[in-house]
Amino acid sequence: MESLVLLAAGERQLRIEKMRTAMAERGIDSAIITSNANIYYLTGRVFSGYVYLPADGSEPIYFVRRPVHLLDERAISVRKPESIISELKVRGLPLPQRVGLELGRMTYNMAQRMMAALGVGSVEDVTTCLSMARAVKTPYEASLLTISGAKHEGAYRKIAKVYRPGMTDLELQVEVERLLRLDGCLGQFRCAGDEMEIFMGNVIAGDNADTPSPYDFAMGGAGLDPSLPLGADGTVLRPGMTVMVDMNGNFTGYISDMTRTYAIGEVDELARLAHQTSIEICRECAKAGRPGVEAKALYELGMGIAKSVGLEDNFMGHRQHASFIGHGVGIEINEWPVITPRSKDILAEGNAIALEPKFVIPGVGAVGVENTYIVGAEGMNIITRAPQELITLV
Amino acid sequence: MESLVLLAAGERQLRIEKMRTAMAERGIDSAIITSNANIYYLTGRVFSGYVYLPADGSEPIYFVRRPVHLLDERAISVRKPESIISELKVRGLPLPQRVGLELGRMTYNMAQRMMAALGVGSVEDVTTCLSMARAVKTPYEASLLTISGAKHEGAYRKIAKVYRPGMTDLELQVEVERLLRLDGCLGQFRCAGDEMEIFMGNVIAGDNADTPSPYDFAMGGAGLDPSLPLGADGTVLRPGMTVMVDMNGNFTGYISDMTRTYAIGEVDELARLAHQTSIEICRECAKAGRPGVEAKALYELGMGIAKSVGLEDNFMGHRQHASFIGHGVGIEINEWPVITPRSKDILAEGNAIALEPKFVIPGVGAVGVENTYIVGAEGMNIITRAPQELITLV
Repeated sequence: MESLVLLAAGERQLRIEKMRTAMAERGIDSAIITSNANIYYLTGRVFSGYVYLPADGSEPIYFVRRPVHLLDERAISVRKPESIISELKVRGLPLPQRVGLELGRMTYNMAQRMMAALGVGSVEDVTTCLSMARAVKTPYEASLLTISGAKHEGAYRKIAKVYRPGMTDLELQVEVERLLRLDGCLGQFRCAGDEMEIFMGNVIAGDNADTPSPYDFAMGGAGLDPSLPLGADGTVLRPGMTVMVDMNGNFTGYISDMTRTYAIGEVDELARLAHQTSIEICRECAKAGRPGVEAKALYELGMGIAKSVGLEDNFMGHRQHASFIGHGVGIEINEWPVITPRSKDILAEGNAIALEPKFVIPGVGAVGVENTYIVGAEGMNIITRAPQELITLV
Repeated sequence: MESLVLLAAGERQLRIEKMRTAMAERGIDSAIITSNANIYYLTGRVFSGYVYLPADGSEPIYFVRRPVHLLDERAISVRKPESIISELKVRGLPLPQRVGLELGRMTYNMAQRMMAALGVGSVEDVTTCLSMARAVKTPYEASLLTISGAKHEGAYRKIAKVYRPGMTDLELQVEVERLLRLDGCLGQFRCAGDEMEIFMGNVIAGDNADTPSPYDFAMGGAGLDPSLPLGADGTVLRPGMTVMVDMNGNFTGYISDMTRTYAIGEVDELARLAHQTSIEICRECAKAGRPGVEAKALYELGMGIAKSVGLEDNFMGHRQHASFIGHGVGIEINEWPVITPRSKDILAEGNAIALEPKFVIPGVGAVGVENTYIVGAEGMNIITRAPQELITLV
């Protein structure tokens, strides 16, 4: 029998304690965790079922629907949420009174069903408790991100070798997908929020970079089909263009985020300036990003540098602008803190942040880099170490 | 300016009329559609915003947040749901009274916010109205599925050529991913329900087929990591094993579903029998599957054939059994009807159904086929025409 909970005891405790503290502050006596991302966070694996977490310090209870081979002595087999209360009663355990659910993730119908099953007229929201806990990575989580960053970098270092003159953005993307997958990339690109959809990342070339997309990512692109209007659109890579590669770094369940940009032959001087500015923004923000610093200060720092070279109209898009220059990463690609002009977030040691100050230069394409960092006492430490300079593909 | 609605007028009308009829039956005067899958269904493209659909026959209103280049004369620019009512008032349009939302897809928090924004104390659920509408494909939708099926088949026909002795299941999967993507597969594998996660499909070899997974797919597999416990686990393909390939057929926004199984050298006679039984179940169900037939009758027919050869314990899994042998497909991989023992669904002309009667043979692997069909007056017409026999890889 395989163990249900894969986290080491101390690691599990670190994560659960953060949740218990946040729950106690809100007067919540128990939380029922149902999303794949948060079940993975609390146990180290995805299963179908519920993690029942009392705030009082007693042991979590693992209600498992599937897979059946994980039904060890710590797990209670359930088929539906209605069984949670009866199983608690059978064991003489206290029933939840003020119960927290992931109301920012769970569907309305499931929340209603869960309330009826629990016999409660109202529920509290623990979505932000979990997001806050997850925003500050444990050293073990940081190590998983660092492994992802290193493998991500290894695959990116091979990109120039798979380029062939005359290929399309899609053909290049497919070869990069293959490099990443053969190096162990899991493929899955977890995003919080059902409006976000992306497959393995984004490769955009030339003026496709200036096609706005419906998704709240930094860059757009028309995509191959209106059912997924994002990224590569079949543009043939031609001299004078740039191609931006922002592909999936999920090798460990924790996603590193890294973008590198390639020039097809010679490109315009303005594009080179913008690319160097992106590298500079990353460097300056990484120096400034210490515990206690306001996230919005990093945004202002980045925007200030973009303005200082007269490129604010091209910063974070051209026809449509993204409202952020960075975001937390971890189990999902869009975690906290968010680096926006109105962010209320304060940086903390252990935050994992992707900075992606990018520019769109009409007639050339997108330029810039993206790096992932872990916030340390002295600044943000980069974990995506592939060379940042504009690389010329020939 | 690009047109916001990409569907031809008649096609759009067909889809909207189905919704209006279902809404009128429930006394719903207007629906606000918010999910990517259903916005795509009603307009032919994904955008960020809301489709406001009155039941009375007046024109739908398209509230668009992003992308900005689609803000044509038919679209109203909004930043948040709170603007819907004020925009309706400005135009002197009737306000919604009995309003339908996708309560089976929308988060609890978003539904609450939407109710407050609309000034209503309760809302109706239109999730099933949409699922019912989508279950019966229009001829145009059937044509998109048929194109996906043909491209899917084209890529599968090249699989034997990318096999190399000694490769792992993952290495084979990566080469199949590349074949599919180069032939235009969009990659995205849309599943309804946030518990479902899969990346580009499932390749399982040998006894990995008998590792149960948390997801509600037909087959399991340990996967590469406990954050995504499904599919290929790095098993080296060895003589005597089977490897089952069930990969993404989304080439058009509509997903065909097809599985083929390969034998590595010689495999056990029982596996061959089970594979032939799967082909037979598909054939018999396709003959029996006519408009008016109960979905559960197809399940019983399939299970009956599996029992007749003494393989019921291996049918649809071994350590863990799936509760279905088929499912609707379309924009998402898990549509209606469902082919389960307790299904209440009745087959209708235009249903698109994937049948996947599969077996797990311990010591060998998974065997069987999966095909996608469109229900016609005389039975189910196959759209995934790659050869079904067990193919020996050497």
